[in-house]
Amino acid sequence: MTLDLQAEHQATGVDAAAAAARRVVDALVRSGDLSGADMSEVADRLNAVADDLEAAAPPLRDRLVDMWRGDGNTRHDPVTGPENPIAPPLEYTAADSRTIEATATLGLPYQGPPSSVHGGISALLLDHTLGVANGWAGKSGMTAELTLRYHRLTPLFEPLTISARQVSVDGRRIRTVGAIQAGGEDCVTAEGLFIAKYPPRPR
Amino acid sequence: MTLDLQAEHQATGVDAAAAAARRVVDALVRSGDLSGADMSEVADRLNAVADDLEAAAPPLRDRLVDMWRGDGNTRHDPVTGPENPIAPPLEYTAADSRTIEATATLGLPYQGPPSSVHGGISALLLDHTLGVANGWAGKSGMTAELTLRYHRLTPLFEPLTISARQVSVDGRRIRTVGAIQAGGEDCVTAEGLFIAKYPPRPR
Repeated sequence: MTLDLQAEHQATGVDAAAAAARRVVDALVRSGDLSGADMSEVADRLNAVADDLEAAAPPLRDRLVDMWRGDGNTRHDPVTGPENPIAPPLEYTAADSRTIEATATLGLPYQGPPSSVHGGISALLLDHTLGVANGWAGKSGMTAELTLRYHRLTPLFEPLTISARQVSVDGRRIRTVGAIQAGGEDCVTAEGLFIAKYPPRPR
Repeated sequence: MTLDLQAEHQATGVDAAAAAARRVVDALVRSGDLSGADMSEVADRLNAVADDLEAAAPPLRDRLVDMWRGDGNTRHDPVTGPENPIAPPLEYTAADSRTIEATATLGLPYQGPPSSVHGGISALLLDHTLGVANGWAGKSGMTAELTLRYHRLTPLFEPLTISARQVSVDGRRIRTVGAIQAGGEDCVTAEGLFIAKYPPRPR
């Protein structure tokens, strides 16, 4: 199985629409009730876009087959997916043959404690990054157990480094660790146990 | 500290705009490259909405103070926040004085394995739900450690029950458990250690 670190990001097509939707999500959470915008009009414009997209969408089954085509990383996942407005999206580089990392700066949609990243968002980023590190190291699987330790608040609006490293493979049991750092200090660390199996892709 | 189970959802204002944005996010991930829509035009329309929202947005500091006003649950968080398009959003009910639960059906933006919820999204929902259960039980805090066990795939497109219960309070140390179930079976279980402290709200 050939596994790139992530799907290529395009400046056009659905990637461009998802990037624009990401701006809308951020601007809405930034706005709240204090906005000078007419939110009823904003809702109408967004519902009109959704109506048009839904009318032109493929059948769900066709989309599921298409999104799982090939063996590479997905383009739709909620962490790295250029097609998914929920994804920051992370873009990984390889640090060595078992270690990957990404740098990201998160805004208000990802907030937990004041001006800090939600602990569950940190868990989301780490779970995914551990999984991609497994693919990069050559043996991947499904998360069986994940333990997260929160050492200090993870700041919004500052560059974070999200990294992961595969530490051992024992038969089908894979152990992987990771961390989110800000300014070189650990904010959250993760240990994962993965099992080398994967459900079939839709066809 | 009075703590409702979650912020009230409104049918108008920013909540309506966020609900429409949630439809856009879902429709985009549903579309991919198979869509019959002109994605360049969709991107233009979404960027125009983002431009208008950004131009009318309050200063970040004012928004931070406003979003943390009062002692209740937040309206902006990525799990329950009616103002946050990333949030499904969950709506909790109390099962007893220490236990809460929500029912939600998740779509493609939350996908990990094929037709299944991303393990990191399950972690996000559980971390938040454990935190709200602590508030409901009367003593809340920040996540110090969270362990997730994945028992079976968590299905998309089916009703899930996400529940949490505070099991003990020992000084500042709070222990809380939770689960995501589908069809009455555990898909993911969680154990959390929380510390009863919280950073100051912006003023």
